[in-house]
Amino acid sequence: MSRLDSFIRRLQAQRACLSEAVEQIRGVDGFVLELGLGNGRTYDHLREICPDREIYVFDRQVNAHPDCVPAEDHLFLGEITATLPQALARLGANAALVHTDVGTGDQKSNERLAATIAPMMRGIMLVGGIVISDQALPAPGLTPLALPDGVKPGRYFMNRAV
Amino acid sequence: MSRLDSFIRRLQAQRACLSEAVEQIRGVDGFVLELGLGNGRTYDHLREICPDREIYVFDRQVNAHPDCVPAEDHLFLGEITATLPQALARLGANAALVHTDVGTGDQKSNERLAATIAPMMRGIMLVGGIVISDQALPAPGLTPLALPDGVKPGRYFMNRAV
Repeated sequence: MSRLDSFIRRLQAQRACLSEAVEQIRGVDGFVLELGLGNGRTYDHLREICPDREIYVFDRQVNAHPDCVPAEDHLFLGEITATLPQALARLGANAALVHTDVGTGDQKSNERLAATIAPMMRGIMLVGGIVISDQALPAPGLTPLALPDGVKPGRYFMNRAV
Repeated sequence: MSRLDSFIRRLQAQRACLSEAVEQIRGVDGFVLELGLGNGRTYDHLREICPDREIYVFDRQVNAHPDCVPAEDHLFLGEITATLPQALARLGANAALVHTDVGTGDQKSNERLAATIAPMMRGIMLVGGIVISDQALPAPGLTPLALPDGVKPGRYFMNRAV
């Protein structure tokens, strides 16, 4: 499979997981965290599918399309290991949905980052909340969920906070 | 439509146009030009769907995944307005397929670049060759082709050299 094919499948998987998660958190009243703004495409999608929820965004710096830059009071800039604790202090453990796509081309470094943030992630989530991620997130209190139809295991990850 | 939806459709359109063009140039014995290597995804796809053709790649500099970097003698580095004439001098007017995706976020600048390279593009192509592009390419000797099923007009462009 070419990298173009693989990339299209990854984006479709991401979108399918987001839709599925939004369905599953209907009864969980909380906010949305987007870890990794990037060019802002997924943030824009989250705004569309979660019009009634507060969305907070995390990134090292803003490189997004001007239409996809969150308001300053919904933006945490800096290293995620520093900004997640800041968000917890300010917002409490009230996240119903977390999407994290902070991976780079370096798989080893991705795994290290995932292992660091996985336990922090659970700490900011409501019970019943869902985290969707481009890396596996093994952590106490996070239970892997079945992926939507058509999403190959390992292409994307969904976990519920229990 | 969110930017994520729109981006997925654009990539699907790109892939559909490439497949269609490869079918249509079966009888045209020539090489492939990829204008804009970027991260190398489309180049990787072109290698897969055109295994028997020479592929030459153009970009300002190499930022691609290491697996997707062409051999040095198949790479033209620099401004496209300088490298296209170099390619013509070295390879002759022998391109059967050209894919150009050199757009940036700035639509005005994209249109200027497209207007500049469109006539140069025709000059390097064989009659019957096809150029697929992210911008309209109005130029003498280039005839717009119908897009594959499911591709919305304006999302991607196909022209045949006549």
